[in-house]
Amino acid sequence: MLQVSDRGMALPLSPYRKLTPYADAAESRGVHVHHLNIGQPDIETPPTMLAAVQQASIRVLEYSPTAGYPSYRHKLASYYQRVGMPVVADDILVTTGGSEALLFAFMCCFNPGDELIVPEPFYGPYLGFAEAAGARIVPVMSHLDNGFALPPIVELAARITPRTKAILICNPNNPTGYVYRRDELEQLLALCQEHHLYLFSDEAYREFCYDAPFLSPLQLHGAAEHVVVLDTISKRYSACGARIGAFVTKSKALFQAAFKFAQLRVSPPGLAQLFAEAAAELPLSYFDHTKAEYRARRDLLLRRLRAMPGVECPTPSGTFYIMARLPVDSTERFAQWLLEEFDHDGQTVMVSPASGFYATPGAGQNEVRLAYVLNLPALEAAMNCLGHALEVYPGRC
Amino acid sequence: MLQVSDRGMALPLSPYRKLTPYADAAESRGVHVHHLNIGQPDIETPPTMLAAVQQASIRVLEYSPTAGYPSYRHKLASYYQRVGMPVVADDILVTTGGSEALLFAFMCCFNPGDELIVPEPFYGPYLGFAEAAGARIVPVMSHLDNGFALPPIVELAARITPRTKAILICNPNNPTGYVYRRDELEQLLALCQEHHLYLFSDEAYREFCYDAPFLSPLQLHGAAEHVVVLDTISKRYSACGARIGAFVTKSKALFQAAFKFAQLRVSPPGLAQLFAEAAAELPLSYFDHTKAEYRARRDLLLRRLRAMPGVECPTPSGTFYIMARLPVDSTERFAQWLLEEFDHDGQTVMVSPASGFYATPGAGQNEVRLAYVLNLPALEAAMNCLGHALEVYPGRC
Repeated sequence: MLQVSDRGMALPLSPYRKLTPYADAAESRGVHVHHLNIGQPDIETPPTMLAAVQQASIRVLEYSPTAGYPSYRHKLASYYQRVGMPVVADDILVTTGGSEALLFAFMCCFNPGDELIVPEPFYGPYLGFAEAAGARIVPVMSHLDNGFALPPIVELAARITPRTKAILICNPNNPTGYVYRRDELEQLLALCQEHHLYLFSDEAYREFCYDAPFLSPLQLHGAAEHVVVLDTISKRYSACGARIGAFVTKSKALFQAAFKFAQLRVSPPGLAQLFAEAAAELPLSYFDHTKAEYRARRDLLLRRLRAMPGVECPTPSGTFYIMARLPVDSTERFAQWLLEEFDHDGQTVMVSPASGFYATPGAGQNEVRLAYVLNLPALEAAMNCLGHALEVYPGRC
Repeated sequence: MLQVSDRGMALPLSPYRKLTPYADAAESRGVHVHHLNIGQPDIETPPTMLAAVQQASIRVLEYSPTAGYPSYRHKLASYYQRVGMPVVADDILVTTGGSEALLFAFMCCFNPGDELIVPEPFYGPYLGFAEAAGARIVPVMSHLDNGFALPPIVELAARITPRTKAILICNPNNPTGYVYRRDELEQLLALCQEHHLYLFSDEAYREFCYDAPFLSPLQLHGAAEHVVVLDTISKRYSACGARIGAFVTKSKALFQAAFKFAQLRVSPPGLAQLFAEAAAELPLSYFDHTKAEYRARRDLLLRRLRAMPGVECPTPSGTFYIMARLPVDSTERFAQWLLEEFDHDGQTVMVSPASGFYATPGAGQNEVRLAYVLNLPALEAAMNCLGHALEVYPGRC
């Protein structure tokens, strides 16, 4: 019998996909589905990015250097410096999306059986990257009731074993929207220093902080050997399809290992690097409009959600996600019911059940993640649907 | 002490890189270096490909579907059908270069400790992908004296153990240029059927066969569950920098496992898929000019090399590589000497020592791989350099 590998079997299908057939069926019945379930931004990609590709003169589209075009690495370093991060071009390995940066970090830091501590809920694919590397995610629960702040540092410390190699945070956090405070980051770094751990910081949503400035652990004193920043242009510039990210570290040994992995795939995408390079030249004021739009959407969702009886949601300070606790038996059942059995004036809403973001079985069963990637009128309509649905859902509790 | 993973340590640096500093130094001394060392084609990328991107109207560059744009998958299936391969869109997972197709195949078929039989010499990065998956490459020697034909099938059979999961061929072969015959492919498939093995076929150079038509093992009777084709547009359309490849199989179980890996990185590059889609529409006659050019270059190299005393080289029927045995003590030393100590009228030549393509220690020490990715006058000049160099090299034997 031909067999696939154990990790090929063990790897979970994306939780997003479970509901997709129901959404497709709803749409084919003529129901308009408001998609609050995925992190695909609707904001226009800066036209200057596409223009850079469209104006390029290319006789032969050659491999780029393995670490990325030097011109892009330099401009990206300048961007990091503008936001206060002490990054130079030599610290940057340009990757094929943030996902490849995660793959490099996991493959280069973990031996089979090693452990990685991650506050949960967390971005689901971390589990798959751990599976690929043979590593194990050790979750530490954060809680909706305090806005998903970093769990007490003693709880993380209690999970450290001789196999622990790293702590991973997503900052600002997908799915919670939480933005880690300086004192939390300092505690994390101190713990990593004490136990010789890497601190992975997934900063895909860096530019979307609404209530306080963003701080990367790379900006802390003593970060150099410990911190690996995993980055992507996907959300920052609404450029998910480009597949350009970055693996950023000041650890020469780790950079060298990641570089060897990067050599296997020769180079990151070339056209997309031209595209990304144009973005790296945008002034920071470019984000003003996008942030104002996202902030207005967040405030709308908070206002509408909090007006729904039994719904609780903390204020997320960053990203374009909101986590909400709903008065339902199970958000997995509720999400399916919304697509299969409900509509309000021919409309319904697709949400992400939060169970897909927890490693602990049974956690998050009455929570959902909502992505505010629709414009304000669409979000109002989606909230009308959600409010009505909660009134009539048979599994309300 | 912070440590990188065992595989991060074990992964070899690309052999290409060892000589690069010497080439850079030669160029900074004003010596013109003819680069026959890398497989970066000089043929123009079809302008219709860039035009497709440059004419695209894109408001938001969204994630593509995980398996690639349906329109591209369909057109790519049509291309495969035009070359006689029974492929439909559902058999195709669009990947980020051929390298990601290799990664998916290795991660999905091998458990740590599993074995993969590969005729050597072979494309060096296979070793790295095996390291990433925790698998071990078991080489079987092919020989310059018979043109690097498939070793006798009993030699492959003798290497099969309970840990063997697959046989990997590159067809046409990089680095040897050998094109596998129907009877060789049939023997390979029969062996895989007998022992329940996958047959990986890396077909990056499919379109470059000069003396006989190409045959993929996927075209053989009974191939469906066994064969995985690993493909890329890099060489076919001189589009290495795009990073678009394909993982092609009719095994539903394996496709599903690879799809789950693909979900981790969400989607392949979007702009590059538009680029590749335009290529998939080109008629097969597009290759006529390119093949004629490569064939003329091959014939030039064969004529010049065979006129050099002590040089032996079989006729490669495909790719744009030639393997040659040189009358030198070590092609590693010779290659470095060419860059460090030799020039002919201010020119020299950079070659790939073949040791980088062998897993067996000490093998291939008097062989080089030459890539004919320069135009005919440049190749003549490069051969003038090589001929003079062999006359004066102190390590000649």
